[in-house]
Amino acid sequence: MANTTSSTSSKPVKVGIVGGTGYTGVELLRMLAQHPGVELTAITSRKEDGMPVAEMFPNLRGHVKLAFSTPEKAPLTGCDVVFFATPHGVAMSQAKELLAAGVRLIDLASDFRLKDIKTFEHWYKIPHTCPDVLDEAVYGLVELNRPALAKARVVGNPGCYPTTILLGLAPLLGGKPLIDTSDIIADSKSGVSGAGRKAEVGSLFSEASDNFKAYGVAGHRHHPEIKAQLDQLAGHPVGLTFVPHLVPMIRGMLSTIYVRILPEARDTDFQAMFEQRYANEAFVDVLPAGSLPDTRSVRASNTLRIALHRPGNGDRLIILVVQDNLVKGAAGQAIQNMNLMFGLPESMGLNQVAILP
Amino acid sequence: MANTTSSTSSKPVKVGIVGGTGYTGVELLRMLAQHPGVELTAITSRKEDGMPVAEMFPNLRGHVKLAFSTPEKAPLTGCDVVFFATPHGVAMSQAKELLAAGVRLIDLASDFRLKDIKTFEHWYKIPHTCPDVLDEAVYGLVELNRPALAKARVVGNPGCYPTTILLGLAPLLGGKPLIDTSDIIADSKSGVSGAGRKAEVGSLFSEASDNFKAYGVAGHRHHPEIKAQLDQLAGHPVGLTFVPHLVPMIRGMLSTIYVRILPEARDTDFQAMFEQRYANEAFVDVLPAGSLPDTRSVRASNTLRIALHRPGNGDRLIILVVQDNLVKGAAGQAIQNMNLMFGLPESMGLNQVAILP
Amino acid sequence: MANTTSSTSSKPVKVGIVGGTGYTGVELLRMLAQHPGVELTAITSRKEDGMPVAEMFPNLRGHVKLAFSTPEKAPLTGCDVVFFATPHGVAMSQAKELLAAGVRLIDLASDFRLKDIKTFEHWYKIPHTCPDVLDEAVYGLVELNRPALAKARVVGNPGCYPTTILLGLAPLLGGKPLIDTSDIIADSKSGVSGAGRKAEVGSLFSEASDNFKAYGVAGHRHHPEIKAQLDQLAGHPVGLTFVPHLVPMIRGMLSTIYVRILPEARDTDFQAMFEQRYANEAFVDVLPAGSLPDTRSVRASNTLRIALHRPGNGDRLIILVVQDNLVKGAAGQAIQNMNLMFGLPESMGLNQVAILP
Amino acid sequence: MANTTSSTSSKPVKVGIVGGTGYTGVELLRMLAQHPGVELTAITSRKEDGMPVAEMFPNLRGHVKLAFSTPEKAPLTGCDVVFFATPHGVAMSQAKELLAAGVRLIDLASDFRLKDIKTFEHWYKIPHTCPDVLDEAVYGLVELNRPALAKARVVGNPGCYPTTILLGLAPLLGGKPLIDTSDIIADSKSGVSGAGRKAEVGSLFSEASDNFKAYGVAGHRHHPEIKAQLDQLAGHPVGLTFVPHLVPMIRGMLSTIYVRILPEARDTDFQAMFEQRYANEAFVDVLPAGSLPDTRSVRASNTLRIALHRPGNGDRLIILVVQDNLVKGAAGQAIQNMNLMFGLPESMGLNQVAILP
Repeated sequence: MANTTSSTSSKPVKVGIVGGTGYTGVELLRMLAQHPGVELTAITSRKEDGMPVAEMFPNLRGHVKLAFSTPEKAPLTGCDVVFFATPHGVAMSQAKELLAAGVRLIDLASDFRLKDIKTFEHWYKIPHTCPDVLDEAVYGLVELNRPALAKARVVGNPGCYPTTILLGLAPLLGGKPLIDTSDIIADSKSGVSGAGRKAEVGSLFSEASDNFKAYGVAGHRHHPEIKAQLDQLAGHPVGLTFVPHLVPMIRGMLSTIYVRILPEARDTDFQAMFEQRYANEAFVDVLPAGSLPDTRSVRASNTLRIALHRPGNGDRLIILVVQDNLVKGAAGQAIQNMNLMFGLPESMGLNQVAILP
Repeated sequence: MANTTSSTSSKPVKVGIVGGTGYTGVELLRMLAQHPGVELTAITSRKEDGMPVAEMFPNLRGHVKLAFSTPEKAPLTGCDVVFFATPHGVAMSQAKELLAAGVRLIDLASDFRLKDIKTFEHWYKIPHTCPDVLDEAVYGLVELNRPALAKARVVGNPGCYPTTILLGLAPLLGGKPLIDTSDIIADSKSGVSGAGRKAEVGSLFSEASDNFKAYGVAGHRHHPEIKAQLDQLAGHPVGLTFVPHLVPMIRGMLSTIYVRILPEARDTDFQAMFEQRYANEAFVDVLPAGSLPDTRSVRASNTLRIALHRPGNGDRLIILVVQDNLVKGAAGQAIQNMNLMFGLPESMGLNQVAILP
Repeated sequence: MANTTSSTSSKPVKVGIVGGTGYTGVELLRMLAQHPGVELTAITSRKEDGMPVAEMFPNLRGHVKLAFSTPEKAPLTGCDVVFFATPHGVAMSQAKELLAAGVRLIDLASDFRLKDIKTFEHWYKIPHTCPDVLDEAVYGLVELNRPALAKARVVGNPGCYPTTILLGLAPLLGGKPLIDTSDIIADSKSGVSGAGRKAEVGSLFSEASDNFKAYGVAGHRHHPEIKAQLDQLAGHPVGLTFVPHLVPMIRGMLSTIYVRILPEARDTDFQAMFEQRYANEAFVDVLPAGSLPDTRSVRASNTLRIALHRPGNGDRLIILVVQDNLVKGAAGQAIQNMNLMFGLPESMGLNQVAILP
Repeated sequence: MANTTSSTSSKPVKVGIVGGTGYTGVELLRMLAQHPGVELTAITSRKEDGMPVAEMFPNLRGHVKLAFSTPEKAPLTGCDVVFFATPHGVAMSQAKELLAAGVRLIDLASDFRLKDIKTFEHWYKIPHTCPDVLDEAVYGLVELNRPALAKARVVGNPGCYPTTILLGLAPLLGGKPLIDTSDIIADSKSGVSGAGRKAEVGSLFSEASDNFKAYGVAGHRHHPEIKAQLDQLAGHPVGLTFVPHLVPMIRGMLSTIYVRILPEARDTDFQAMFEQRYANEAFVDVLPAGSLPDTRSVRASNTLRIALHRPGNGDRLIILVVQDNLVKGAAGQAIQNMNLMFGLPESMGLNQVAILP
């Protein structure tokens, strides 16, 4: 780390991206292009070898000169860190080689999120080929795992839904019993970009626009990820009902979380507890009690906002959490992890104001 | 009624509309213009006196020749039925005069929905000036109150949220105890047209588009309406948490309802129970178990669709309900009530296929 | 025809659809399901053999009982008419067999729109395998070709852009010279459903929403179709600049057409001329001078609306034309053709009021 | 200026904003909050006196601490520059007082755009109360007026439509005759935020979403502004047809400009001419020939992109221009002017990458 930290003061972190043709990829590029502490070194895509990234993503014209190249040609082993903005299964296939070359890696997919291999294999339908790397991987939710992340060589960047639900519940778990952990409900809503840039009928404008629906009710891959982290935070298995929904907007995510306050905790000042817990966090904003956060208040920014509600001062606590699913829910959080791993100021390159309207 | 019924076979029901310049108004006009059993007789608006309705709503060009007129000039007392597509407070101010003239009335606002006057006055901040008419008013949810509605002179047409939540829960209430009625959660999502055609900043395209938020968490006017009906269905006071959200789409509503199955009811075949309950209903469609209804499947139609989910066959039952908030949630339901009140086939003029895409 | 006409009074027209899994297919199904003069007999899809259409398109639940079947199993030769809602190339491959069996056909793709085979092959990159059928095919723009269509066995249903531009210009062409036909500009804008239900990145919600662009500027397949028809209307070759654009909405199309009035025609009352030309047309609505038609005024309806503007009473005439690209621009017009071909009232099943909002 | 320039190297420019409650206001705040060379000093609003701007616009939480105050309390005369993000008529009423106090001003409305007072009064329906200030005001299109702007005390920041059309045409005007200047057509399309944050029915989500229309065809206030600048660029009066349209998206503007190439100019390499003209411009990006710029490629950025098309190498040149109407079309351009006026690097605080998707 001493080495790393000193390098950052003198020279930029060399960054590689594997799979930059999806939405988390272009979002990484957008943010890294404006990051003063990095040097974009390589971006790989087998399919688009030779195409300038700014040709595929014209918003990058004038900002990113790099072209896609095949992994063979791209000097990933010369990077300090490599982001995987790929489907699951890719990061694990390249992890060992990169680690051996002294490269650290941040996987934006799920290869290094679930410590339990059976759970991984059950939900992702592929064998996990890299269990020893998984062992050392750190779950990249900075606000929960800062010390471990600073030293991590491998980071499993959290899923978008988990980020909202975990940060929305963390202050309530792990201390004095406050809520009925056997019965937590997270009713989550996501913009369509969460489905990625794959050409699929269900993600077409004419299918998703002017429309709303739930999906994955019978089981969503983020369920085991959320539950594993909640179990750990609580210190015991929790009961979780999780229903994601698809909102006709590009970016943005809101989770409405319902918990029941235990009788012995009815006098708790939850608002103060949340404010205190996140007082020093640059990217978690606890709104005044009774606020109604909207997703546009975080559009294209790395901030996540939380508001608490307790209707009629009863035993139901409702936690509203908003984020931009592509930023705090993906690329921004990954860069926040990178900053931490390389001793850069945690919010370097991440301070942009949300776009409203 | 004999008189009414015979009249329908021979001559059309004469219909008046008070306040046709909002979205429920134009939706009534759209549907009544295609209804073979009615004659549009009068439509009132103080502000737009003399303006042809098709000038304000060009979709009606070639279909509706009527012009707005002031209540003074419009022969409402010559109608068989008058719809109030007005803010709350208007219907109650004209009810007695119309009833005295033998006119029946259907209020799409809230004047005749809440039997308890104190509750009404608490939530709507105006005195109820018409308690005796309220006494005879019938809550216009056809699937629950068909016999009373057939004879009703005054109908309080249900709110949009209540329609989804009540039809989603009705099969579970009133018989053998099946669910924990002390802890029902309804997480509802509505298109923006539910906010009406008032010029308000919060409903602007640039505010509501590409955005998502909860609102009314501290208390929404539909909460007491839903609770009053649930209490009656259950036969005892229920506990209800209700959180509405605003979706960036024009029409459509989805309620995600969470209930806990009682231990003694774990073997219940809820799917069969729902299918049986609604087997003869023209406008309630129970989808196959595990379906994921989307709002566009009912866009511009009077159908409400329900799907049941029981993740992991556990003790949580999740009920998904979709409708078009302007049709089954407002104008279509009002016409369904009218059909019933005047002995017309219940689905007359209401059989249009939903618009997809 | 006598046979056909008499059959319609006594028994419904038997209808088959080839390729009902796209947006023109489901739109045909929606409209035919409500059409009192037809019997939906068969719908083919190789890929979805056996799937009930209402399962793919849940808006049809309760309205259409048919399932997709392979062409082999579907009794298309037993139909009176077959609609092709397929990509180009399919209708021409099945035309002869159907005609031989006495079936008439309406192609919603381009196989029978362009009389010039070389032009077809240049733009569509496939050989035309059916030139003799093409010879007898009639261009299905009812308002221009009514007599020929009534007798047609094969109809090339017009493209969506051509419908707006041709109906917007027809009154100005073919008589006394009124406009400079060497320099016509059509700046057209279409909703995304015009791109169909194919899974393509460019049609994804996250690509097309909150975005606007021109496309096909270097050459769009509708250009030769529009030009061929304009040439014929004018009686000589016209000069046409055509630029289509993509609007982030599902349905709807607006063409802004710019023509220059000839000096000798400056005193023409264009408004009166248009009104007179379309006075007896059920589906062409000439708005009062200076109107600003919006696409939602025709959403889900078969009506096309036209408004004329002449800024400063100068020599520029601007013609605004709106339609629903899936209805008057595709499925509705196809049904209008069918009605005409089978002696049914031209507007049978096509009188629905547009959905607003 | 020496004074100004030296001050910028040592201390920030003190900025005031009049009327920060609209969309150009919040956009100024968003961009100025991230601008390293300014100090936000005062923001006025009579109606919202005392309200923190971050309460009205929650995207600014953590970035802007300022509260609105009345003009009386806000020390505008202590500013170096004041932006007017107000309706027309406000800047002219305060200009003299501010100038007298040594404050420079940039009006984002129209008070200082039109040099001809009669034209102003005809289109804006109010008397111009400040003709002498108007005399010295400079039209704030940096790419055309850089030298004058560097010294300006008063800047009339261009309208959004004019920015696209003027930068799209400037390379063609003023030199050797290249195009028929008597017949220029600009078919422009704007996102809804161009209509501002006023509560008006026409800007409601349920009116503007899933809809498209032309407006202002009979005459739009930007027409005289565009024409006056074009006349000046051409050195003679031009003929301009301008038709704006409303696109269902929040931000973004595309102008499709049609000009006819003169016979003597047919061999011109227009692509090279445009590239050369804008080679040194930080915010004008000439795309490769035949490109199809989309509005999202400039979303939330100050870049304007231009693409040229010449179908069939004929005599029609089509110029496509995209910008973000709130940035290069308003707030960003205003800041670009400020940078220039105060000797700051022209792109300071304006280098953000566009948001895609």
